Amino acid sequence: MTGREIENLIQLLAKLPGLGPRSARRAALALIKRRESLLAPLASAMTDAAAAIRECSTCGNFDTRDPCAICADPARDAALLCVVEEVADLWALERTGSYKGRYHVLGGNLSALDGRGPGELRIGPLVARCRAGGISEVILALSATVEGQTTAHYVTDSLEGAGVRISRLAHGVPVGGELDYLDDGTISAALKARTPVQG
Amino acid sequence: MTGREIENLIQLLAKLPGLGPRSARRAALALIKRRESLLAPLASAMTDAAAAIRECSTCGNFDTRDPCAICADPARDAALLCVVEEVADLWALERTGSYKGRYHVLGGNLSALDGRGPGELRIGPLVARCRAGGISEVILALSATVEGQTTAHYVTDSLEGAGVRISRLAHGVPVGGELDYLDDGTISAALKARTPVQG
Repeated sequence: MTGREIENLIQLLAKLPGLGPRSARRAALALIKRRESLLAPLASAMTDAAAAIRECSTCGNFDTRDPCAICADPARDAALLCVVEEVADLWALERTGSYKGRYHVLGGNLSALDGRGPGELRIGPLVARCRAGGISEVILALSATVEGQTTAHYVTDSLEGAGVRISRLAHGVPVGGELDYLDDGTISAALKARTPVQG
Repeated sequence: MTGREIENLIQLLAKLPGLGPRSARRAALALIKRRESLLAPLASAMTDAAAAIRECSTCGNFDTRDPCAICADPARDAALLCVVEEVADLWALERTGSYKGRYHVLGGNLSALDGRGPGELRIGPLVARCRAGGISEVILALSATVEGQTTAHYVTDSLEGAGVRISRLAHGVPVGGELDYLDDGTISAALKARTPVQG
């Protein structure tokens, strides 16, 4: 009944997090009804994003340039490195405005369930960055879940002998919660009250 | 912190129904992470849709051709015309598979609150279609809300003397509900038990 183009659009929209088959249909209709003001701009924004956005080869952040704006910013403290699981977590920390160091995005956490081992994460590059010198403290801003804490232990072990202090976010982070869902105030408080890890 | 392209993408995604600022950020990240498998295909699906999809000049449905597949299908009963508010309602009726006539999409309902009068709806073209002959029955498949029923009354008045029988969906439709959210069984039952309107 609906054309091939519409079906295709609905099926792709349904793959977005937060949209199911029914809400994808509603989104597709909203797009088609607002062709000039929404569909065309969104199509070109996506085309631009697909062409322009790359992963920062230093920290793993997404940006249009490599190194990314954060890695290239001389005003940020290069001695301070915050390790996060995902770019979403980096964004969450940036929204608080209370961190002025740099980042390292692991690309996930260690999960036996999902079959994600250390080889899937950017742990090797993290060790290399720390060994290269210039970094005095590594802040582990990982989820307070079993997987996140397993990852924190693994990263701590891997960084042994790299000559960096390791700290983790304070336990203001609700246990079982994910960083990206936290309010900015809680993230700020946890960042300020970070505690040293027994090496 | 995030690039202009990413911000632009997030802001446009946040305009989709069902996505707020936070879920739009998550959707944008999911898109960027799955650039090859999701972002690029969705961008081209949207570009294709924007270029190909038009409004059927007969019934108001969205399709890649004009007249649309339903209007052009000789197997559908041209004597039966179902009047709906939105294309979403047409899709909902089509999903039931229990209607074999044609459609007329009004483009909304009469709403004093939203400042939508008869001039904003495709009521004139509906009257013209009926007066042109060949249509024996008009089924009003409008929402069981105050606005939908006001619209039904107005359409019934407008069609006086056009020589068509007018019916409405049976009251299987929950009062206060919107057609697009109903389950297919309820829509089918309401379609079968449609009742004549006093002209």
